[in-house]
Amino acid sequence: MNYKQLVQEITKKRSFLCVGLDTDINKIPSFLKKADNPVFEFNKRIIDATSPYAVAFKLNTAFYESYGVQGWLDLEKSIKYIKTYYPDSFIIADAKRGDIGNTSKMYAKAFFESMSCDAITVAPYMGKDSVSPFLESDGKWAILLALTSNEGAFDFQTIGIKGSENVLFETVLSKSKLWGTKENMMYVVGATKAESFKKIREIIPDHFLLVPGVGAQGGDLEQVAKYGMNKSCGLLVNSSRAIIFADNTEDFDKIAAEKAKEMQLQMDTLLKSYGL
Amino acid sequence: MNYKQLVQEITKKRSFLCVGLDTDINKIPSFLKKADNPVFEFNKRIIDATSPYAVAFKLNTAFYESYGVQGWLDLEKSIKYIKTYYPDSFIIADAKRGDIGNTSKMYAKAFFESMSCDAITVAPYMGKDSVSPFLESDGKWAILLALTSNEGAFDFQTIGIKGSENVLFETVLSKSKLWGTKENMMYVVGATKAESFKKIREIIPDHFLLVPGVGAQGGDLEQVAKYGMNKSCGLLVNSSRAIIFADNTEDFDKIAAEKAKEMQLQMDTLLKSYGL
Repeated sequence: MNYKQLVQEITKKRSFLCVGLDTDINKIPSFLKKADNPVFEFNKRIIDATSPYAVAFKLNTAFYESYGVQGWLDLEKSIKYIKTYYPDSFIIADAKRGDIGNTSKMYAKAFFESMSCDAITVAPYMGKDSVSPFLESDGKWAILLALTSNEGAFDFQTIGIKGSENVLFETVLSKSKLWGTKENMMYVVGATKAESFKKIREIIPDHFLLVPGVGAQGGDLEQVAKYGMNKSCGLLVNSSRAIIFADNTEDFDKIAAEKAKEMQLQMDTLLKSYGL
Repeated sequence: MNYKQLVQEITKKRSFLCVGLDTDINKIPSFLKKADNPVFEFNKRIIDATSPYAVAFKLNTAFYESYGVQGWLDLEKSIKYIKTYYPDSFIIADAKRGDIGNTSKMYAKAFFESMSCDAITVAPYMGKDSVSPFLESDGKWAILLALTSNEGAFDFQTIGIKGSENVLFETVLSKSKLWGTKENMMYVVGATKAESFKKIREIIPDHFLLVPGVGAQGGDLEQVAKYGMNKSCGLLVNSSRAIIFADNTEDFDKIAAEKAKEMQLQMDTLLKSYGL
């Protein structure tokens, strides 16, 4: 999915919500655990229930890999399900990959070709040749980690850089934005640090930001929109646990839909107030 | 495998060689492509041929993931094969993972419990809570990226840190060494920058270093030993392409064994000259 299509989906659906399918088998409703394929069954029902309110789905690959081959099958099947029934959804493999050039190429092949994802999250530490292989196909995106929403973000991402006014994550932004364009790169910026969005938008005014940490991690949607939104919206706000594990009865999908709808309605209001 | 056992294996086998199973199906001998399971068949023969000369095997997960579920099966089967027939080998999942705490926990489960690897490579960008989950099991290791062997290493890893004499990768070393011990942490340091080993050894005199880039990437074994070896050896030197793809005839495994033996003999000499 390309930039224009993504912006169109956002304005059409009145939402910049990304639902995070961090599907932990220990947290899904117990009645589902008897299903032939509990993880896929859970995802299918969450996808069906929330897709009217979400423009994107993000699959955290760790949760699938931890179940070995079965998990990998669930991941592929879930992505295929979205592609088949909700072809206008933007699909993100939250894999945080990044390796030397020939290896990153293999990852690009795995996630873009074999699995038809639209985007993959990438760690910046290994530099340009670890990111470039993800920028070579039209309508495919690298989403680079900039400022993450965890405590460890302050270990390295916010240390000052010699001879510069920037801290590390700002240097990552200003250097890496030259490797691609707003049409094939986004950045992960945690919602827990809304005050950082101002400087971020000075460095990358036009790129999309993937914002985790709204909901369970305590970020505030209005603050994120205030400092992060641009004239094409430029935001995908992810919520995982606060939606998918909001309830663990047989109605879990209905409750997930309600939670997603609540966010979508807030997003509609925010889009309007910024003229979108 | 714990620190003591690893050092014992090195002194017993007279080798600190790690064979990298970066198995690209396009590069394996064509006669093998007709096998039921070409990637596993290739790995099996490389493992059998090189294990007398190697103390460790490193599996780059990208190469397996790019073949989807079949690749994941090949990865698991190859690891199981090493565990079963060469239980004294140190097995590294070169996965370069790293995510927020609860997600890193899932990765630790995937690679340490489900697959019985001894170690996993981890990217440092997300800080302490992304690394700590890999340090919680006896005899299991996190191998943190410090200075990688690719061109992009100079984009961020070598930039100066404000108020410090260190560049970024040195700050990664000095900060992260406090998160674990020499018994559960190693560091990736590319062989292409042997001159950097001196400062690295000032910061982390006792930790093991996993050194890629000898062979195909042009690093020099003597230089690495000169600057990087410590009193317990403290080195695992990885070679992938220069061993596993040295030949593509029916004798590919014999040639791989010869290449591995050449390195082992050099390593024996180096170990002796440093009193090990």
